[in-house]
Order: sequence, then C-alpha cells, then structure tokens
Amino acid sequence: MHLSAHQSTWNHGRTGIWFVGARGSVATTATLGLAAIASGLSAPTGCVTAQAPLDDVALPAFADLVVGGHDISDTPLGKKAEQLVEAGMIPYRLLEAVRPQLDAVDADIRPGYDAAHRSGSQAAAAEALAADIVDFRERHGLARVVVVDLASTEPLPAPAPELEDLDLLRAALEDPEREVLPASSVNAYAALLAGAPYAGFTPSASMNLPALHALAAERGVPFAGQDGKTGQTWLRSVLAPAITARGLRVLSWAGSNLLGGGDGATLADPHAVQSKLVSKNRGLQDLTGSTVTPLHIDNVPDLGDIKVAWDHIHIEGFLGSRLTLQTTWSAYDSMLAAPLVLDLARLLALADAAGLSGPVPEMGFFFKDPWGSDVHSFAEQSRVLGVWAHRTSAQADAVQAGVDEP
Amino acid sequence: MHLSAHQSTWNHGRTGIWFVGARGSVATTATLGLAAIASGLSAPTGCVTAQAPLDDVALPAFADLVVGGHDISDTPLGKKAEQLVEAGMIPYRLLEAVRPQLDAVDADIRPGYDAAHRSGSQAAAAEALAADIVDFRERHGLARVVVVDLASTEPLPAPAPELEDLDLLRAALEDPEREVLPASSVNAYAALLAGAPYAGFTPSASMNLPALHALAAERGVPFAGQDGKTGQTWLRSVLAPAITARGLRVLSWAGSNLLGGGDGATLADPHAVQSKLVSKNRGLQDLTGSTVTPLHIDNVPDLGDIKVAWDHIHIEGFLGSRLTLQTTWSAYDSMLAAPLVLDLARLLALADAAGLSGPVPEMGFFFKDPWGSDVHSFAEQSRVLGVWAHRTSAQADAVQAGVDEP
Amino acid sequence: MHLSAHQSTWNHGRTGIWFVGARGSVATTATLGLAAIASGLSAPTGCVTAQAPLDDVALPAFADLVVGGHDISDTPLGKKAEQLVEAGMIPYRLLEAVRPQLDAVDADIRPGYDAAHRSGSQAAAAEALAADIVDFRERHGLARVVVVDLASTEPLPAPAPELEDLDLLRAALEDPEREVLPASSVNAYAALLAGAPYAGFTPSASMNLPALHALAAERGVPFAGQDGKTGQTWLRSVLAPAITARGLRVLSWAGSNLLGGGDGATLADPHAVQSKLVSKNRGLQDLTGSTVTPLHIDNVPDLGDIKVAWDHIHIEGFLGSRLTLQTTWSAYDSMLAAPLVLDLARLLALADAAGLSGPVPEMGFFFKDPWGSDVHSFAEQSRVLGVWAHRTSAQADAVQAGVDEP
Amino acid sequence: MHLSAHQSTWNHGRTGIWFVGARGSVATTATLGLAAIASGLSAPTGCVTAQAPLDDVALPAFADLVVGGHDISDTPLGKKAEQLVEAGMIPYRLLEAVRPQLDAVDADIRPGYDAAHRSGSQAAAAEALAADIVDFRERHGLARVVVVDLASTEPLPAPAPELEDLDLLRAALEDPEREVLPASSVNAYAALLAGAPYAGFTPSASMNLPALHALAAERGVPFAGQDGKTGQTWLRSVLAPAITARGLRVLSWAGSNLLGGGDGATLADPHAVQSKLVSKNRGLQDLTGSTVTPLHIDNVPDLGDIKVAWDHIHIEGFLGSRLTLQTTWSAYDSMLAAPLVLDLARLLALADAAGLSGPVPEMGFFFKDPWGSDVHSFAEQSRVLGVWAHRTSAQADAVQAGVDEP
Repeated sequence: MHLSAHQSTWNHGRTGIWFVGARGSVATTATLGLAAIASGLSAPTGCVTAQAPLDDVALPAFADLVVGGHDISDTPLGKKAEQLVEAGMIPYRLLEAVRPQLDAVDADIRPGYDAAHRSGSQAAAAEALAADIVDFRERHGLARVVVVDLASTEPLPAPAPELEDLDLLRAALEDPEREVLPASSVNAYAALLAGAPYAGFTPSASMNLPALHALAAERGVPFAGQDGKTGQTWLRSVLAPAITARGLRVLSWAGSNLLGGGDGATLADPHAVQSKLVSKNRGLQDLTGSTVTPLHIDNVPDLGDIKVAWDHIHIEGFLGSRLTLQTTWSAYDSMLAAPLVLDLARLLALADAAGLSGPVPEMGFFFKDPWGSDVHSFAEQSRVLGVWAHRTSAQADAVQAGVDEP
Repeated sequence: MHLSAHQSTWNHGRTGIWFVGARGSVATTATLGLAAIASGLSAPTGCVTAQAPLDDVALPAFADLVVGGHDISDTPLGKKAEQLVEAGMIPYRLLEAVRPQLDAVDADIRPGYDAAHRSGSQAAAAEALAADIVDFRERHGLARVVVVDLASTEPLPAPAPELEDLDLLRAALEDPEREVLPASSVNAYAALLAGAPYAGFTPSASMNLPALHALAAERGVPFAGQDGKTGQTWLRSVLAPAITARGLRVLSWAGSNLLGGGDGATLADPHAVQSKLVSKNRGLQDLTGSTVTPLHIDNVPDLGDIKVAWDHIHIEGFLGSRLTLQTTWSAYDSMLAAPLVLDLARLLALADAAGLSGPVPEMGFFFKDPWGSDVHSFAEQSRVLGVWAHRTSAQADAVQAGVDEP
Repeated sequence: MHLSAHQSTWNHGRTGIWFVGARGSVATTATLGLAAIASGLSAPTGCVTAQAPLDDVALPAFADLVVGGHDISDTPLGKKAEQLVEAGMIPYRLLEAVRPQLDAVDADIRPGYDAAHRSGSQAAAAEALAADIVDFRERHGLARVVVVDLASTEPLPAPAPELEDLDLLRAALEDPEREVLPASSVNAYAALLAGAPYAGFTPSASMNLPALHALAAERGVPFAGQDGKTGQTWLRSVLAPAITARGLRVLSWAGSNLLGGGDGATLADPHAVQSKLVSKNRGLQDLTGSTVTPLHIDNVPDLGDIKVAWDHIHIEGFLGSRLTLQTTWSAYDSMLAAPLVLDLARLLALADAAGLSGPVPEMGFFFKDPWGSDVHSFAEQSRVLGVWAHRTSAQADAVQAGVDEP
Repeated sequence: MHLSAHQSTWNHGRTGIWFVGARGSVATTATLGLAAIASGLSAPTGCVTAQAPLDDVALPAFADLVVGGHDISDTPLGKKAEQLVEAGMIPYRLLEAVRPQLDAVDADIRPGYDAAHRSGSQAAAAEALAADIVDFRERHGLARVVVVDLASTEPLPAPAPELEDLDLLRAALEDPEREVLPASSVNAYAALLAGAPYAGFTPSASMNLPALHALAAERGVPFAGQDGKTGQTWLRSVLAPAITARGLRVLSWAGSNLLGGGDGATLADPHAVQSKLVSKNRGLQDLTGSTVTPLHIDNVPDLGDIKVAWDHIHIEGFLGSRLTLQTTWSAYDSMLAAPLVLDLARLLALADAAGLSGPVPEMGFFFKDPWGSDVHSFAEQSRVLGVWAHRTSAQADAVQAGVDEP
C-alpha cells in the first residue's frame, strides 16, 4: 500500500489524555509505558501510530502527551504499578525509572463518578466531572483532551426513551432522584460537556446512546469505539476473512477465554459478561456467516492479568472434507491494550484538529464492535485506517491554515 | 474491495488441464472433484475463482475443462481414488458417482518422463511429451491446455551454465549421454514446446531456470509458480502481516509439520526436503524480519494424507512484554491443493487468452515462493489477484475483439 | 505388576448384554464392533479385558456374548449404523460384513420405557421391562444378562422420601398417577427385578438411589457405575495424580468440550448438562484440591460424534514459578465408549458368577464418578482392577466348584 | 498406596551437595531455592521428598544441607541469580533475601575440570577434584557429600577398551598425553575417589561406563541416573502407560522442543543433541512399542530458560478408529529440575547411610534413562520409589544401630 507522504509536523498544540479508570491495569500500563517511551527507555512496540503506514502522519509526539483521569479507587498509581511488577508483568527497574512521572500523573487523578455515593442530580455530577477535565486542560495549557473509557465493563442499560432523545435525557438528568445513565455514559456525557474527543475502549454503553450521539453532533466532538480489539477477537478478525478468501466455509468457531485480574472478576458476573460476549461474537458471525460460535469467558484468578484464549475452528473444504484450525493465544491483556490506547489518543487528537465530529468509522481497526462501520476484516481496517489518517492530516493542516490566515 | 464488474462470458474456447503426476493424490482429487462439480454433485468449495471477487470474472466453466496428463505410475485413476476412499478422505458414494469420468480421464494419461528408463536425448524425450499434449489438445478440440506440475518434489539441480542460457541448453539436450535437466524441467520444457501455459505447484526446479524463462518469452507462454501455498505457509502469510500491522515484533516462529502419504515419504529424503524448507521459510522471514524460524517436516506414515502443522510464535509487545500464539492446523493436504489447482487452470487460461507471456506475479496468491513477486502477505495478494483478474478479463476480450474484427 | 495367572477357562455359561438405549450411537458401535471381533474381522483394540493384566482372567468369550435391548427409537440398527458410516466413523465394508448380525440383534430390541406414553403404574411398566429381559435370557439360553444403561443423560430427580426407602418406593410405584422414578431408574429397577447385573454408563440417576441399592442387596445383584470415563475426564484422572506425585500444585484446571451428535444436543439442555458437569468435575477436585475448575460443554452439531476437549492446567512449581500444560483431545466418543461397555459386560458377568452383590468399587476404573469408591487416580484404579479380577475369578471358580460338587 | 510409617528421625549426620556445574541455571536455582526453603521463605513445592508418601521417611532436613561445587565459569552465583531475575524466572525480593547464603556457597565453588586447560594427567586432575570434595566435607563436618552432575550435555565418547575395564582405565589416566575420559566422567571418577554418592542429571556419559561401575562397586558408592526427567519426557512416561492400559495403540508420537538459554545453545550442536534425543526417546519406544517417534530440539534463544514442548500422539482405537491427543507444555526448565536435584541429594544420602552400593534402580522415577532399570512408567516408578525409601530408611537405621552397638 503506497500512501503519499504528507510530511508536515504536528502544529496543533499539546494533547491531554484523560482516563476514565485511571488507576486500573490498562491505564496504569499506558501511563507507565508513555513515560518510558517519552523518556527513551522503551521503544513504542505495539503502537501502530509509530510504524508504517502511520509513522509519516503528523501526530502529537509521545513526549507531548499529558495524562490525568478519573477513578473511584484511591490506590495510588505507583502502588498499582508495584502490583503489576509483582505479577511479573512489568520489570522492577522500569517502574523505578519512571516513578516520578507516575506520581505526577497520580496528582492529576480526580475522584470518579460513583453512583453509590452520589448526592445531587446526574446532571450536576456530569458537570463536576467535565469541570475536572476542563481544569486539567487549562492548568496544563493543552489544546485538547482526549477522554478514553477504561473502566470496568457494566451491564447494558434497559431501553428507555431518555436514552434515545437528548431533550428527554437533559430533563431526566436534572432529577436528583433518578439514575438515568449508567456510569460509563455519565462519563461520556461529561466528556461531551467538556468538548473532549472520546474513545470507548470497553463494551459498556458509554457514548453508544442516540441521545449522546445527538449531543456530540451539537458540540462537534469526534468519538470512536467500541470495545478494544486486542487479542482473541483481533485474531478472529484476521483469520476469518482469510479463510473466506480461500473459498472455505466456517462450520463452527468455538472459543474459550481464561482470565484473572479485575477483568476476570468483573466478567464472572453473568450480566456484565453478556455485553462482552455479544460484542465479541458480532464481528465473527458477520465475517463467517456461521452462527455456531459458542464462547465462554472464565474467571481464573490465578492467571492474574494473563489472558489465555483457545479457539477451535471447524471448516468445510473441497468435496465436503473437514479441516480444523486451533489457536491458543496467551498474553498480558493490559500490555496489548495500552499501546492501542495511546494510538487512539493520538489519532483522535488528529480527528479533532481536522474538525471531525461524530463517530469515526475508519477507527474500526481498534474495536470489536466499531461504531459507524460494519467492516470487521482486520486487513481491510488496516488499509482504511492508513488512508484516513493521511487524508485527515492534510485536512487538519488545511483547517490550521484557515485559522492562521487572516 | 469494489471491483467494476466486467460482465462478459467466456468466449475463448475450451480448456484442457494436463497434470504432470496425473495419478498422484492431488491430481486424482482434482480430477474427481472437477467431475463432481461439473455434474452438480458438489459445490466448488475451496475454489477461489467460484466466489467474490473473482466470480464475476469470465473464466472457463468447470464443465468445459478436460483433463489428461503424464504419470510414471500405471495404477489407474479409479484404483488410486479407491485408496483415497479407504483413507477416509473421499466418500464412497462420490467415487461411485463419477467413476465413468475418472475412467475417461485415465484413458488420456500418457507415460511420464522417467530418467531411469530414458533412451535417446532429453530433447527427444521432451518432444515426445509435447506431442502428447498437442495430440490431447487436438483430439478434444481445445483452445489451449494448461500444464500443472503436481509430481513429487525433487532435489534442486546443481548450478550449470546450460541452465542459464537457452542456446547452451538446447545444445546439451541433444546429447543422448547427458542428463541436463531434472525431470520437472523436462516437463516444463515440453509444455513450452507445446505452447502450453504452465503452473509449478511443487518446489522442484521445473520452469524456474533462466534458460526456460527465455524460451517462455520466445514462445509467448504465461506461467505461474511456485509451490502451492495450501496450509501452514498460507496461515503464516495471513498471520505474520497482521502481527506486524499491530506494531508487534516477532521474535521467533517455530514450526513442525507431520505428514504421511507419498509426500511424507518423499520429504523424508533430506535432499528433497531442503527445497521445500527453503521455499516455506522465505516468505516468513521476509514478512517478520526474524531469522529464528526453525522448521521441520516429519514423515509420519500413519497420518496418511492428513497434514498436521504446529506453529509456536513468540512475540514482543509493549514494554518488552512477551506473548505467544500457537496454531495447530489439521487437514487433508490434497483437499486443500486440488481446488487451487482448478483455479490456476482457469486463471492461466485467462492469462493466455489475454496474450500474457512470462511469469504472472499477480498469481502469487497461490504460491509459497511466488515467481516475479516479493509480496507474501495473503491479504495483499488477495487484493492484487482480484484487480488483476478483472483487468485481464477486459484485456482478453479486447484481444478477442481484435481477432474477431477484420 | 505381577499377578498370579489363574489359568481357568470360563465355565459359567453364556452371557447376554441388554442395552438400555440399544439403538443409540454407543450401543450400535458396541454391537457392530462385537460382531466384527467375534467374527475375527477386527481386533479388540480398546477393550481392556483383552490385554494384560486382564487377558489371563477367564471371562465370557466375545463370540459368546448375545446382544438385545430396549430403545424408544424404532430406527433399525442397520440404518443407525449407516449414519455412522456416513459420518466417517465406521468403514462401509465393515458394516456390510456384519449387517446380518446387526439385523439379528435388532430383532431382539424391545420398545423402551417412555414416560410420555405410559399407561398404568411405573411398577407395571418396570415389570414389563423385566419380562423382556427374562424372555431374552430364556430364549437364548443365557446364564445371565448384564444390563448397561446407554440412554440419553437426564436431569437429576428432586430429593424425595420414596427414593430413599424401598418400601415407600414400592408403594409409590403402584400409583398409576405418579411419576416417582426417572426413566433411567425405572430401567435399573427392571434390571433388579430380572436379577440382572447392571452398569450405569451415563450420569443419570439410574441405580444411584438408596432405595434401589436396598433392592439390589435383597436380590443379590452386583452393579457398577457411574458415567463412563472415556476421554477428557479419563485424561484428567491420569494427569492430575501424576502432577501431584511430582509435588506440583494445580492452581486451576479449565476445560472446554465441543461435541455434536445426539449427546451434544442433549447436553445443550442446561438441566441435563448439570449432572454431567458435576460428575466430570468431582474427581478432578478430589485429585487436585483446586476448586478453580471451570468447565463447559458446547453443542457443535457439525462435529457429529467427534468430541474435542481442550484443557488448560495452570500449575505452581518451585519457588512459586508457574507452568502450564494444555491438552487437546479429539476422538469419536462412541468409539471410546463401546469397547469399555463390552469390558463391563464381561466383568459384571464375572462378578455375578462369583456371587457378588451391590456396588463393585473396584470397577471405578471405568467411571467418572465411581459408586462405592473415592479413588479417582487412573493408575491406582488400573492396579486395583487387575487384582480384583484375578481374585474374583478364583472366587467364581470356587462358587462353581461348590455348585458342581454334591 | 499405604506404606508403614517408619517414624524415625534422621540421625546419620549432615549432608553436603556438590554440584558439577555449580554456577549454571539449575544449580543456581537449586541453591537459591534451598536457601529460601531452609529459611522458611518458600515452601518445598516440586520436591517429592517433602510430600506423601515420602514425607514420613527420615531424610536430611533442608536446613542441614550444605552446598558447594565445581564450575569452569567464574561468574559469581549472585550475578547468575540476577540474570534469572532479569529473565522473570525468580522474584527480585527472593534473591535479595537469600543473597548472603548465595555468597557463602559461592565461596565453596572451586574451578572445574577443563580439558582445554589441563596440565598433567587426567588421573592427577581427578585427584585434585576429589580433594576439593573431601576438603569441603571436612571443613563443614559433613557425614557425606552427594555429587550431582548438572554440567552441559556432552557428545558421547567413542567406544574404547579403557572405558570397559577399570585396570586399563587407571593406566590410561596416568598418561598426561591422553584424553581418555570426557569431562563428565572425570568428575564422576573424582566423586568415586572421594567416596561420594553420585547423581547423573544430564545425558552425558559421566558414571555410565563399565569401568566406573566397577570402581563404584569397589568403593561401595551408590549412584543414580541418568538425565533428569523433568518435563516432556516425564509427561510421556505418564501418558504412554495410561494409553496402553486402555487397550489403545499408539501409532506415532511426534514431538517438538523449543528452548533457549545455555541448554538451547548446547543442544543446537548436532553431536551433543544426539545423546539427548536417544535418551528422550528410549523410554517412549519401550512404553508404546511404536518406532514412529520423530523428535526435535530447536534452539530458540528468545525463549530464555522457558522450554515449550508440543507432542502429537496418533492413536488407534476401537475398530481401527483414530484419535489424537496433543499436549503443549511450557515451563522454566530449571524450576522443574531444581527441586528434583534436592530430592536426589536427600535420597542418595539415605542410600549411602543404608550402605547401598552401585546403581539404585528404584530411583528411576527421576530419570529419562534409568540406570539399572527398564521401568519407564511414571506411576509404577512412583510406587517403587515409595516402597524403596521406606525400606531403605529402616535399613539405614539398622546399620546405624549396628554401628552404635558394641
């Protein structure tokens, strides 16, 4: 794939990243990793924006990204990072080297939205959250702050008219007695109030409500989601189109996921896991046409942050013959997610600089269940993302030129 | 990928397929399968020309393909097919249904080139082989015959000036005392003499000699190769680019192949296996940059035609973390190869109708070690093949129009 | 293991096998296989009674076993066997060779107990079933008939006083309005009425009720169960004791089962699967002490009778280090079960000849959840079975000698 | 298995462990682990002598074991341990906690035998090595020192009369020009000179020469070997007998080993690997009767000390049906070996206290290729070891009683 190299440098200001769930495993890993990359201790392995075909697109430098966030936990980032060291995920020396940067970020983490301890209306809560983001932007002199949802997966909300219509929603949010939005969507609402580009990295409802889409359009805010495509689902989106391209027919695709850590415990709740399973399977069924796709997620606490996924693919070939492909994937899940989170922040900063608004379907590359797109093939998503980034970079420069000129 | 549908029908005459190794497992499976497809008993599962994006390209109909070939074995096709039934590979009823067609093809199989029993020069032998092909073409009233090499893998020949230069080669071939060309290349030479498009589905030298390239150019014959990419190598050409597209770094990629059947026995010979191993690993090393790619092929006779391949991929991710992917692939190898062989015949007929000559790099899709191309990514090869087929179809029609018009 | 060879021959009369579920996959395979072995077409591979250390124990010869049974299906055995041929499980020629024997057995299959169509009391129904068995025994001049439960897995019955107490049960069975016993237990009750030794090869309640144990004691009938240990669970009972014998500690043992066929469909019912899952996991938890043993059974119809099982074992070793073992098992489930079923018939005939009564714990070798035993280690079970068979053989001869002498 | 508990305590003096290869991965891990266990920081997970049925046998306490050794490397133990921490194998804090003990052991490591720098005869060299061992024993007031060979795998020596006959060997060793014994055997000879019980944990020749067996008998020294059975081979010795006990027939058993570290590099040498491959396969062929057991060991440096092993087992079952079992094993190899090494030292101390001499076949439990035994089944080896240890413990006490009494 040959893309015309638009060799500008980034001149659209400094960028903030605001993590919802800033003290969780993924955010901690991303924050620590960003510090390591920015200070030259680590290469940006796993960041797709750091390599061809995206590496000649002008994006915010790693060293110019500033991190803050919300969390309901008050375990300091440094402490959380120590747990990741204990688990064998992060080398001791790397933590020691970037501990001052972690402490600095920790000072920019504010108490997150907690439905259990709310006083006042959800509107008031969202405004307070938005004020945190705006304050962070102003204190650090940032051109924009990208909000990334990394909080625990929630059950999906029941359908309700307020989730469909922005005016109904606004009215309902003022009622201090009502819990209209799930926590993830309160945070998404706050991001919109703050005018912050938004990435939904979990399968929670978050921005994925018509009323919030309307608000994003009103405010001119770009967003992308949903549910980071990091491991097994990514692999499926690589393999399924290739099998199909060979003229072979998937008869069944069975999967098993083992994971521990906080994610394992969250997903042991059958309600929470449901949104995850639906999200994981949708693309696969689209790609293969098969509906025999049994999938399980098991909480195996002793695995810690390691996720092990086994897939058994049963395929029909020539003259009705049968073939099987099995895959076993084993990885630290946070290590897969963290670099993609940094990529999302860089690319949403670009989208924002180019004046985009609403869902960015070309970022489907990053997600299990892409908003605004039904493309699930990873190869096709890679191609589309590359083209989009180059085109949007030129557009951002044009916008800037318009601003700069009298 | 959206390709403009050039909705012509094939009007370039009937096509023959001439198998070198016509009584081997792959050729038997392809012949039997073609009969089953042509008579509507089986769907063309596994044939990429029978599905998007190639299915709207005008190609010879399956029912218009006529099969013949060379073989040094005199076991009749029907007998060979019975062995495949015994092995559980082909259903008994399917064989019974197409046995008359198999017997008809068997009558068109001629004794193959056998260095051990040669009398006269290699030139004379090649002319006799070419005469078989021409005779087959004329008897069946075919517009063209595509030769496909499916014979056992040979050791590669030692370098020699005659293999580099067509004139030297021609002279040497006349010497009845000399064995200049390996058997696969004698057959390729015969195909060129007969003006037949050629596909090299094995890793043997076959057409892959500068002297033969020169002859193909002289005769205006298109060809494609080399070494059919059916199973493990195909999977690698799917996975490796995807891993790279995620910014991850392959540290090592170790593979083990178990197979029985005639192929297993052939590849138990360390000289023959060498050309196979080189061919299998070249693409992987190109795609990943890693040179730690140990690979073994073991002869496990009890597996029969089943090939089992295990790959262990060790990957570096974010902050130096390690992840692993293991794949186990289990399939009847002939069942993977046979539909691709039919695809190649259809597509080389197209290339020939369009007047192409020399290697067709856009057919790299089918091969471990594509002649004329260094593209190994399967996704990219898929895209290229689709574009090429549509473009070439238009070109063939233009050629035909030129012929038709005064 | 050296066992004194008690070299007698079997002189305790001919033996019948009565299958509950005589037209299912396992029974069909066992019946067909028995015919093939008896006529010398196949070796008794997979029969543990045909090899050391059991092969010098005098047991009924394969050729002296006569098969009959109950089933609610009226698909003839020959038809069912054809389906197994279609599925690639049984060679066409083998079926053709033993079709007359299958037809003969089919004539000895009687309509099974069907709660949905019952008229009259369960007592009457059981008596009719028992009469079928007695009639079969007398018609064929058999010394004894061993009943083997191979019917579909049922949900477990709710606790009730009648299941605990034989007198209460007898009274309740007379009431035509009541459905006291599940179908499997009606059949077990009938076996006891007929004085037939019994093997419970499924996880259904069957004989496993205190009231039936009391009846077995009263009638002097030996029985063994429960739930045939054929594949994944067998493998676990091999591996878990070995891991423990190395001083290693199992942290978690996660498993996934894929299967199609009738069994897959039955186990897709969450109630039916529950008794299976409990049965499968009990031994593992005993052997490892770990309670993190997530296990799934998925219905994957396209797999047919093939069962694929993946296990992921996470182990703690020296100094808290972690190791993993993964196993993937792929087999035709009925092919694993059928030879064990023949073994059970031969060994229960021996138990009966020796005058044993009640549960035979030494047959735990064959079962996931052995009645009368808490030994789950396969190696230990093998040892115990060998010793028991030799001892019981001597006992049977002593009994016979007592009978023979005045 | 019920063994009469002979509840004595160990009263046969303190025991030394002398590692040949004392600064390698296994020895470093064993030394560090012993310190951690002795000081109560770690449980003796992976030590079979610390659990039933061996835990009621009186053996030297972990805290009473004293470590020294030979090595040709002069990298201090603490430095080597740091590398293991870097590799993620050992937790940083554990190393910090036992560093003083490591330093103390390091002071007891003497320069090992190095053929390349030898001056004087091999006899003289062996005597110097023996003097190191005796000196260590006396300085620490030890009742005995057990020598354990953990040095790199060597190629096997060519047959020679001196290796068969002790007198010829003694004479040849005096010749300063000759290199009669490979390094491993020089060390074994030295152990015998020092009267030290010996364990051969590698597949090198070491003690396995008739001339050395004769010397061991002369000196009354017990020894055990050969080639520690830690991972894949252990698993095979668990699975193969179990498959056989089910009456199933192994058709082929193919294996692939990936490993890095020093061991990977050593075994990349085709001569060195040969002794390993033979040793690994012998037991498997004995257990299964199959000779189709292709096996590879690949050097994959990026895996470090992790060893990954894949096995594909093809099995014939009932009526000729086929089943497959695949296993993937992933573990830090040194972590598997180290606790067994401690077990061997404890058990050989017992053997010595009981006055045993020559090979101890009952220790086959620990070895791929057991000296003096052709039992390979792990279950059987476990049983035998338990019985032996209890019996030998009683014998040691009887010896001691004889010594104590006048």
